[in-house]
Amino acid sequence: MIQKLIQKIQKTHAPIVVGLDPMLSYVPAHIQKRAFEEHGETLEGAAEAIWQYNKEIVDHVYDLIPAVKPQIAMYEQFGIPGLMAFKKTVDYCKSKDLVVIGDIKRGDIGSTSAAYAVGHLGKVKVGNNSFAGFDEDFVTVNPYLGTDGVKPFVDVCKEEKKGLFILVKTSNPSSGEFQDRLIDGRPLYELVGEQVAKWGEDCMGDDYSYVGAVVGATYPEQGKVLRKIMPKSFILVPGYGAQGGKGADLVHFFNEDGLGAIVNSSRGIIAAYKQEQYAKYGEEHFAEASRAAVEAMIADIGTALERAK
Amino acid sequence: MIQKLIQKIQKTHAPIVVGLDPMLSYVPAHIQKRAFEEHGETLEGAAEAIWQYNKEIVDHVYDLIPAVKPQIAMYEQFGIPGLMAFKKTVDYCKSKDLVVIGDIKRGDIGSTSAAYAVGHLGKVKVGNNSFAGFDEDFVTVNPYLGTDGVKPFVDVCKEEKKGLFILVKTSNPSSGEFQDRLIDGRPLYELVGEQVAKWGEDCMGDDYSYVGAVVGATYPEQGKVLRKIMPKSFILVPGYGAQGGKGADLVHFFNEDGLGAIVNSSRGIIAAYKQEQYAKYGEEHFAEASRAAVEAMIADIGTALERAK
Repeated sequence: MIQKLIQKIQKTHAPIVVGLDPMLSYVPAHIQKRAFEEHGETLEGAAEAIWQYNKEIVDHVYDLIPAVKPQIAMYEQFGIPGLMAFKKTVDYCKSKDLVVIGDIKRGDIGSTSAAYAVGHLGKVKVGNNSFAGFDEDFVTVNPYLGTDGVKPFVDVCKEEKKGLFILVKTSNPSSGEFQDRLIDGRPLYELVGEQVAKWGEDCMGDDYSYVGAVVGATYPEQGKVLRKIMPKSFILVPGYGAQGGKGADLVHFFNEDGLGAIVNSSRGIIAAYKQEQYAKYGEEHFAEASRAAVEAMIADIGTALERAK
Repeated sequence: MIQKLIQKIQKTHAPIVVGLDPMLSYVPAHIQKRAFEEHGETLEGAAEAIWQYNKEIVDHVYDLIPAVKPQIAMYEQFGIPGLMAFKKTVDYCKSKDLVVIGDIKRGDIGSTSAAYAVGHLGKVKVGNNSFAGFDEDFVTVNPYLGTDGVKPFVDVCKEEKKGLFILVKTSNPSSGEFQDRLIDGRPLYELVGEQVAKWGEDCMGDDYSYVGAVVGATYPEQGKVLRKIMPKSFILVPGYGAQGGKGADLVHFFNEDGLGAIVNSSRGIIAAYKQEQYAKYGEEHFAEASRAAVEAMIADIGTALERAK
């Protein structure tokens, strides 16, 4: 799957991923209205609204991008119907040949981590059959529990040729509370980064490992250091756009081959129609605004990478 | 909810929680057979089997215990049908007046953490209505992302009178990889424990905060220290029984009032019938074996606490 991700990045010239994190407040009124007419103002109605919203965005951007990153929390908040919309979104994106990164940030130990890994990346055995529960291509994993928590995910990835992005330095303001604390003179996130490199060593595609890392765009200096600590790991970079990261901040997340990072934008793309810059599209044509925002993001990052050469 | 938990502990004299972490391999053959006859060897069949298994155990132990802790990963691995069985289990346990601790180990930032909190502890708004997605009483939370990740959970708890257990020192062998690393001469888990105490300060029930911590039974010395760092926090203690923790190891997790901790056992209770000690019950009467195992656990911890007085 890491090879597919790389090939798609090279083909689209777009090291970007669109975060499908639908808040109900982003969904245009006409879509909400239609969904509520059919299902009432219920969890099913909300789930239908976010699914239709996602579908229209995906239809308008899938040819420009290599990957999407649905954030499961935004679906899970609507209970079972929400999770059905998550699954529908994953399946639909895969049918469009997009690489799907499930932003699930799971992490537990032993057989429990194995259950998450099986449910999201692998297949679970039931009698003589086996079934994929959610079937994403990559998932994000929380490292706080150590190797016991990560290894079951790595094992499933080896079997299924899938991949991981492990939280190293997150994009939020308080990420330093624990992640920046110094251990033998070095911040915790560097130690986690070293572990990511180690976990990824025997999980290699051609040039990159399928065990990657999450490092926030909001911390470019830390990204520079982590790039060197994990030379073979792909870095998933959230925090571009709405959270404040800019193309120029991102160059150090990439290697000299122009690869090694994939930058996420969620709200900046899926709710682009709410920005002044894209207001001309109007709410009805929200997905065209998303397409324009994707094109602008590709140009911004492309220019920054070009300048850094 | 912390008051309800305390009252139920005092009434049952059982500071214990039964972990409903059903592996399909634990479910007796006759239950699997019935479920598969009805639904085939499918995700629905597996979900039905674990639900029936849970129900029979709950029916046999609910009067002895204050709380259950379903581990969502064990359901999530069976996709949507599995999560429906999770919800059914939560609802059923609540109908039996048990406190339900959703072992979900979620953790993200800002609006994403808020979405998890709303989905598991609160209510989500859809138009003019609001709905509870999963509606547990407590959930477990991963602290790696710092205050940004925890605060949205705390906010929902305040509103809904619910509670949290935040991972501090987990029970697994490799938990020390990051959690034990020294920061200014003190292990990371102590710093996380201090934060838990701080987050919990303005979240007080009568004597205890509804922001608690997870500390593994397998680390009794660390439990002793953390008990002092977080005097007002309830500690959820996994790792008893199958993972090696014993009653005598647990006394330091409690305060002098005999409260402040709740000890989880999963496999040791729900798959008790597989142990030599309870083999006489036979597979057919697996839930009676679970009841006997609960009684033995209550006695073990009760004796240990009595001796420590």
